[in-house]
Amino acid sequence: MPLDFLIATPSSELKTALQNKINQKTKPLGALGQLESLALHIGLCQNTLMPSLNNPCLLIFAGDHGIASSGVSAYPQSVTAQMVANFLAGGAAINVFARQHQLNLLVVDAGVNADLVAHPQLIAAKIAKGTENFLKSPAMSSAACKTALDTGAVLVMQQYDLGCNCIGFGEMGIGNTSSAALLMHYLTAIPLAQCVGRGTGLDELQLQKKLSILQQALTHHGHLTEPLTLLATLGGYEIAMMVGAYLQAAESGMLIMVDGFIAGTALLVASQLYPQVLDYCVFSHVSSEQGHQALLEHFKVKALLNLNLRLGEGSGIALAYPLLQSAVLFLNEMATFAEAGVDHSE
Amino acid sequence: MPLDFLIATPSSELKTALQNKINQKTKPLGALGQLESLALHIGLCQNTLMPSLNNPCLLIFAGDHGIASSGVSAYPQSVTAQMVANFLAGGAAINVFARQHQLNLLVVDAGVNADLVAHPQLIAAKIAKGTENFLKSPAMSSAACKTALDTGAVLVMQQYDLGCNCIGFGEMGIGNTSSAALLMHYLTAIPLAQCVGRGTGLDELQLQKKLSILQQALTHHGHLTEPLTLLATLGGYEIAMMVGAYLQAAESGMLIMVDGFIAGTALLVASQLYPQVLDYCVFSHVSSEQGHQALLEHFKVKALLNLNLRLGEGSGIALAYPLLQSAVLFLNEMATFAEAGVDHSE
Repeated sequence: MPLDFLIATPSSELKTALQNKINQKTKPLGALGQLESLALHIGLCQNTLMPSLNNPCLLIFAGDHGIASSGVSAYPQSVTAQMVANFLAGGAAINVFARQHQLNLLVVDAGVNADLVAHPQLIAAKIAKGTENFLKSPAMSSAACKTALDTGAVLVMQQYDLGCNCIGFGEMGIGNTSSAALLMHYLTAIPLAQCVGRGTGLDELQLQKKLSILQQALTHHGHLTEPLTLLATLGGYEIAMMVGAYLQAAESGMLIMVDGFIAGTALLVASQLYPQVLDYCVFSHVSSEQGHQALLEHFKVKALLNLNLRLGEGSGIALAYPLLQSAVLFLNEMATFAEAGVDHSE
Repeated sequence: MPLDFLIATPSSELKTALQNKINQKTKPLGALGQLESLALHIGLCQNTLMPSLNNPCLLIFAGDHGIASSGVSAYPQSVTAQMVANFLAGGAAINVFARQHQLNLLVVDAGVNADLVAHPQLIAAKIAKGTENFLKSPAMSSAACKTALDTGAVLVMQQYDLGCNCIGFGEMGIGNTSSAALLMHYLTAIPLAQCVGRGTGLDELQLQKKLSILQQALTHHGHLTEPLTLLATLGGYEIAMMVGAYLQAAESGMLIMVDGFIAGTALLVASQLYPQVLDYCVFSHVSSEQGHQALLEHFKVKALLNLNLRLGEGSGIALAYPLLQSAVLFLNEMATFAEAGVDHSE
């Protein structure tokens, strides 16, 4: 199952010109901190001194997980489909925040274990009604995994064709922190106990049970290293679609907004296949889900927000989005020392 | 010079009802992290289950400092007036961010050392053309300090009368991190070296010189404890106006958005006079100016953003403002489990 993406490393030619432009703005050198590196990053990704965020879009991939029946979550599997309905009715947190910042919000049925009613904001792309329980077998076949990757890529291309140059991926799937924790452990070699967290809100006893269940999965599947094999064995349809989506977005030169823990492990898989994908990524927040801070350290990045969020849905992306706008706006709109007639440093 | 503010402690009656409202939203308990405590805080300040942010306003207080002539800043004093002109021309960082989030931006000439041309966004409230150099005498007389406090209060009342219930204060003043560092040291007993930072961008040598100059001021003025005496002796007109502005905003029950280091030390003075003022405050960001993290720890608060900003102007407030909106919006607009038909925790 070879993948065929062509991801260019963003040109660094403009780096000096962009940094000069930032340094000429009427503020002490570096005084806008992380916003300055963000502006530089966006300018480099878009290969321009005048970047812009056009038709920003958020795709929420939803999928169910066989492992949910083993009791790894505080919520029953039925909640995945119910939350999809909530997204489509406009009542979830991500709806509120996407409306606030005019992000185009679409929900993708990647593999929800229910028959979903058609809706203008719902993209029907169900691979199967949930994955298999990876305690007993691989979560999905390698063919299904490939289909999911391709679907993620196609959905991103559709947004690109509509003029979107800035895209983020959220997820919904009861049980998916379990998949994510295993993928992270396998691909980073960070001890499993440090990758497993409370998800939707497990107490200490439930957390220990989750860890013990995931250790069984580890024992069952043994030594695996190939990212796509790992993805098929332990992933979810929403995670696999996100992997394809990341790779296509990078190939298309789009700015990628990365959400929290599950979105981060999907990116981890993608980056093992094509490390250049990371050049296009902005990390929106560090989640309070155990493992996410370590994952960001693995990527050697500092996220924009640290608000102890642990919701998924792309909520961190939507909350961080105005900071991306601010970075672009100060780069384009602030006066220079010369324009404003302000004395430069002594 | 007695002050006469009447600041009520926000009612805690609604606390349980607000927490219940938050907990009924379609998300795991606590999954919106700091945004949830923010929503609770805003609801309590406004004494309602349906808070709203009306006519949000940002006042930038500008003033010059006699100490600037002693070489404590990387920029000459002339930059204060030049930056005021830049604010009024719309070219500064705060203009860009205030436009982005539709914050009403007004600039107050508290004590700029220049004759400023009238402008619709400029409030002419000059006490004097800069403070005295506090190495030689008190920065201002106690009468001038009282006038500044009163002026700050009056300006806030004007915004309140225009329907503003959410206000923030920024500042501009070459040399004002020196005043702020001394005020912080006196009022918190944190060692001066931990309160003094690089301001607009001093190098290590310049920083040591600044510290040594401020130690001379300490020796000169000796033991002082009374907040208003300290404010007159070491403060600035923009800092004194901010103190009055904080106190009036709290008396009027407005939500107060607190910016960075200098704005924080003005609040420190205000809170020594009326500790209840802190109940109305939201801390927008932690600055990279040395001393600010310690100041926030002194207040026992966690700021919303940590982006290594060190610009002043209220820029941190403007960047954090959409998070305040998000907190209010999720509280008002998200569906409950019952409304959305989503199963609650198992």
